[in-house]
Amino acid sequence: MKFTHLFEPRSIAVVGVSDDAARPGSQAVRALLKNGYAGKIYPVNPKYDAFEGMKCYPSVEAIPEHVDLVVIGVPAQGVQPVLEQCVARKVGFAVILSGGFRESGPDGIERERRMLETARQSGLRIIGPNCLGFANIHSNVYAAFGSITREPKLKKGGVSLVTQSGGFGYSIALACAEAGVGFRHVIATGNESDIDTIELIDALIDDAETRIIVAYIEGTEDGRALLDVGRKALAAGKPVLLWKGGVTEQGARAAASHTASMTGNYDFYRALFKQTGIVELREIHEAVDYLKALAGGRYPEGGGVAVLGVSGGSAIVFSDAGEPEGLQLCDLSEETQQRLAKVVPNIGAVHNPVDLTAGYFSAANQDKLELALHAVLDDPNVHAVCINTATTGKAGSLVAAQVLARVAAGAKKPLVVFSSAPASQIADALSVFDEACVPVLPSPSRAAKALAMLARYREAQRRLAGHAGDPAASEDPAPPAEWSGAAGALSETQSKAILSAAGIPVTRDAIVQGVDAGVFDSMTAPLVVKIVSSDIPHKTEAGGVKVGIRTRGELESAIGEVLKNARSYKPDARIDGVLVSEMVTGGFELIAGVVNDIVFGPVVVVGAGGIYAELMRDSACRIAPFDEAVAREMLDELRCRPILDGVRGAPPLDADAVARALAALSRFAWSQRERVQEVDLNPLFVLPSGVAAADALIVLRGEGAR
Amino acid sequence: MKFTHLFEPRSIAVVGVSDDAARPGSQAVRALLKNGYAGKIYPVNPKYDAFEGMKCYPSVEAIPEHVDLVVIGVPAQGVQPVLEQCVARKVGFAVILSGGFRESGPDGIERERRMLETARQSGLRIIGPNCLGFANIHSNVYAAFGSITREPKLKKGGVSLVTQSGGFGYSIALACAEAGVGFRHVIATGNESDIDTIELIDALIDDAETRIIVAYIEGTEDGRALLDVGRKALAAGKPVLLWKGGVTEQGARAAASHTASMTGNYDFYRALFKQTGIVELREIHEAVDYLKALAGGRYPEGGGVAVLGVSGGSAIVFSDAGEPEGLQLCDLSEETQQRLAKVVPNIGAVHNPVDLTAGYFSAANQDKLELALHAVLDDPNVHAVCINTATTGKAGSLVAAQVLARVAAGAKKPLVVFSSAPASQIADALSVFDEACVPVLPSPSRAAKALAMLARYREAQRRLAGHAGDPAASEDPAPPAEWSGAAGALSETQSKAILSAAGIPVTRDAIVQGVDAGVFDSMTAPLVVKIVSSDIPHKTEAGGVKVGIRTRGELESAIGEVLKNARSYKPDARIDGVLVSEMVTGGFELIAGVVNDIVFGPVVVVGAGGIYAELMRDSACRIAPFDEAVAREMLDELRCRPILDGVRGAPPLDADAVARALAALSRFAWSQRERVQEVDLNPLFVLPSGVAAADALIVLRGEGAR
Repeated sequence: MKFTHLFEPRSIAVVGVSDDAARPGSQAVRALLKNGYAGKIYPVNPKYDAFEGMKCYPSVEAIPEHVDLVVIGVPAQGVQPVLEQCVARKVGFAVILSGGFRESGPDGIERERRMLETARQSGLRIIGPNCLGFANIHSNVYAAFGSITREPKLKKGGVSLVTQSGGFGYSIALACAEAGVGFRHVIATGNESDIDTIELIDALIDDAETRIIVAYIEGTEDGRALLDVGRKALAAGKPVLLWKGGVTEQGARAAASHTASMTGNYDFYRALFKQTGIVELREIHEAVDYLKALAGGRYPEGGGVAVLGVSGGSAIVFSDAGEPEGLQLCDLSEETQQRLAKVVPNIGAVHNPVDLTAGYFSAANQDKLELALHAVLDDPNVHAVCINTATTGKAGSLVAAQVLARVAAGAKKPLVVFSSAPASQIADALSVFDEACVPVLPSPSRAAKALAMLARYREAQRRLAGHAGDPAASEDPAPPAEWSGAAGALSETQSKAILSAAGIPVTRDAIVQGVDAGVFDSMTAPLVVKIVSSDIPHKTEAGGVKVGIRTRGELESAIGEVLKNARSYKPDARIDGVLVSEMVTGGFELIAGVVNDIVFGPVVVVGAGGIYAELMRDSACRIAPFDEAVAREMLDELRCRPILDGVRGAPPLDADAVARALAALSRFAWSQRERVQEVDLNPLFVLPSGVAAADALIVLRGEGAR
Repeated sequence: MKFTHLFEPRSIAVVGVSDDAARPGSQAVRALLKNGYAGKIYPVNPKYDAFEGMKCYPSVEAIPEHVDLVVIGVPAQGVQPVLEQCVARKVGFAVILSGGFRESGPDGIERERRMLETARQSGLRIIGPNCLGFANIHSNVYAAFGSITREPKLKKGGVSLVTQSGGFGYSIALACAEAGVGFRHVIATGNESDIDTIELIDALIDDAETRIIVAYIEGTEDGRALLDVGRKALAAGKPVLLWKGGVTEQGARAAASHTASMTGNYDFYRALFKQTGIVELREIHEAVDYLKALAGGRYPEGGGVAVLGVSGGSAIVFSDAGEPEGLQLCDLSEETQQRLAKVVPNIGAVHNPVDLTAGYFSAANQDKLELALHAVLDDPNVHAVCINTATTGKAGSLVAAQVLARVAAGAKKPLVVFSSAPASQIADALSVFDEACVPVLPSPSRAAKALAMLARYREAQRRLAGHAGDPAASEDPAPPAEWSGAAGALSETQSKAILSAAGIPVTRDAIVQGVDAGVFDSMTAPLVVKIVSSDIPHKTEAGGVKVGIRTRGELESAIGEVLKNARSYKPDARIDGVLVSEMVTGGFELIAGVVNDIVFGPVVVVGAGGIYAELMRDSACRIAPFDEAVAREMLDELRCRPILDGVRGAPPLDADAVARALAALSRFAWSQRERVQEVDLNPLFVLPSGVAAADALIVLRGEGAR
């Protein structure tokens, strides 16, 4: 791993130690000593001969041996000379704890620019500046200060945390630690001038000791890199739990005042999460719950859940929370119910939710409980099991834990437990559950949400495995000849011709020059005419559109009118003719398009048409390119989706054709990403058979503009 | 209070004690003894002479003195004779712990019916059956078994809990208790055959020791009673936190299998919550957070929040979570920023969020912190303050707590704290915060949600105070003469005439008998004609509608056609004529109506018109009657609301006229609630000036049908 000597340094120099215990450098050295770091430590400060009983060096250059990692805690002005010494001494990595860079105004920006220049020229890699640093919990490396070095000490485990915000990110770590989660690496990246969160996630996927990655980011400048590491993590079976801070307009403003990071568009992030199986976090306790649930490494193969317990209310609450997340209290087979009937009291219930009756969790019932669990786990409708012990006390909970641990050991389906007994009361049971990786959640609703997350993650894995290949890998067609040198909006005719060639159906049409209705006979009325001019993007406003033309005579006069209107609207407009098209009638209007985002590159958007739809924000997006299966998922996200299946007696519409068009659009947008800034298909008519864009617009950026 | 001798009994008989410690009766007596209940205890079981060192009586009748409360834990078959003895001995209250009633099939239903008959005839009031019973924590009354009687003992406080589900409801209590919440009454009501949750909430509002009420219900048969207690609680300033279980179709199914309670429509519940300020719970930790936040008794007078702290990421997360809930990081005045600049380090920030810089919470800064807090609290834009101490450790947190406690003591605006330090590490600080009623939340997002809840509650109180009077109190007009004896759907003409008289604008129209176009001159074309017949509710299907009539001649032939079509569609239909109406053009189509729900009575619904709107579920409802202010809130909930303000250059539409029409509809629906089953105004056109229902339907129920 390229970061081996960063995370497992054989020697660490700490520049900026001092008698002031509050100085970052002092904190770092004390943390290394206290936690028993096994490598060499070189304190650096020209004012001291010794620090904490070790020799203190006047400079990095004065250190006689090779140094793997230099931790820098001197004031901002003093950082650059230290870096230059690092370069001279061929140090591989530096962690710059000091603030006073990009976040602090023009001087800081210049300081950070020089710092990065030095690093880039020499190959020195940097974490920070303006960060809390990192800790390798397994090897007791503490290149950090502040909360990371303070009590409580994190225990060893398989979770690594990367966070742009040290203060908030470490809050997540503390909450997880309190719930018993163990850590591998904890890294607070601050300004991310050189090494950023995405590069670190990438490295952590390759780290054998890291099983799950938790990250907090406020933004990235390279959404494609995040897409790639997300897919890599999914393929490696290492879940990434990611919190994106700054999701509202307000939040984005706060982000701007916090770091100089770019905050991208939240919808694009959410699309990326879906495309990669990245698990989004929006609460600290979600991180705790999800890490517990993921610890077992078992995933439900569907949404069917059997709920067993001693509290009917808890089953209702599970169901209320699970249903919107795609879980169902599935029907149990006749056989399952018969097996349950032998071990569940008569006054209970053997349908789902299974009512074990109050007080069931007891030593006397342990064999029965085991049989009941096997009965539901054997049922093919059941993909996961939730056991509500609810308020069950010490003895009953221990019995439940022991039985569940036995059953879980041989189970392929996940089991989760809802318990509300105080942790102090059922500590024995909790440690049995923990040992068996059976997650215990503090409410039935949180148990449901954790199971739903597991099911979604598994679904993302299945999708990744099922995709025939990366559409991006197919050869990129050359850009159409006509747009060499072009920039800005293409005409509707040009746009349609290009999109049609790319496999996106558009309405049949023809361009006429002057008042000539000869095309009438080769088309099916009603027709529509539109002025063709890249100087007139808003045709309706210019009187450049006439609809509902049914006769040859009407066509003739309509062509004459739009030409006249266009000339009077913009006398100097270059007019390429008049477009005569078939009007699409019937079907349902969608809008589709491409945004070539500065962070994410081309993103395809589809939504319901019309102003009302716009207000409703009924749209879905995915990062291009993607295949038809992904396009179908986009359609399934639309609230207007049922209309495509035919509602109120209307015929079903051709959703498959929409999916094909969207996938084609995504391939086109990706292959022409250097030039295509924007595409609009508005409206895109979905018909009982097929789909057709009745209008189309491609906006180019200048060549080499990016 | 009518339940004084239930909750503060001077003497308790417990029927069904036994050597088997697991028996509910045995558990109840032991809980009374262990917790030091001060009144007389009479164990009852004919098989024993003594129980737990007390005399054991053969029956309730055999007890020599008056008994306030009888707790019954005998098997279901034995309950009725005990109740009859209670009646004979004029016992006021019984708690029936035993199961085997309504929830257990036909025999149990009959048993419960007889039980209730006995109670109703005698005035004996009953909690249960099939319940965990209740505890009065202040007076050590434990008329209960199971988790309520087990460790940990709840501490005394001002929160009372009522729950239909003992198992799940007590889970809420345990989580709150662990967070330090103290309790007054904890009541698990089971089948609620006699005394139900709503009656108990009503009584708890009158209980001087109860300050906040938490409730879990799966359903009620009397939504109006819940509306009334909700309003009473709001007026009394006693917040009600209510969890409605069974909100999804699936959830509702689970409810049906759990108790025989009726599960009402969740949308109606949510309308009720808005109309009463009832705080909805959907997570156990929400109960914990909200109780902490409510403990201070301070409410924000708006959504402006100042966020101060040591973690920029935390401020972003606060903002992300707060914005959708109506909170804003408000602008701070020039003066506030100047005051802050004196006490915030230069490298920090004095705009909102205020960056105090890392390590700020320390003894050296305590005066500065106090000045900073006063600066933001004095700013009129600031309605609440959130302080992020985040990972700040023991010493710093204690300083923050002491300063905040001093400031909070004199503050009218609420202060909340986000801290992620482990509770064990900052126990001193937490107890100072607790003493000062400054809530400490475990994430910035939960801090935001708790503040948003306080702001919504305050808003509900303001609305209650601002409402000129209960529209229900106005005199009910007599029902229109024409529907004496009528039932089913009224004709459009009848419906429109009645609604018009009730103050709801409808289109101008006239009924003609036979082919007569004389009305043409008195109306403004285009016109529409419709057959008038209560035997033909679906007019379009019958060919009974013609639209777009522009001339006298067209009117004449249209009248002829619809008459002919109607006769051939249903030869025996009674035809009252043909309705000629002005067609409304322009404006925006809404749908409005009334559902006279079996649980909630008349509820008014308004939504966007058209099939797409239906798919989008873009609608709002409120329980009738209500005033125009409430009607405006309904409109504000619609996603199509911006259309009424005029979008894309369209003129603004008359939202006030819609509000007036909805309020009038609500008064009509309430005053005629005995007869009106349903009203449909579809479409209801909102015009630049005014509103008009272009079609209307009233469906009556038979007289005395309810």
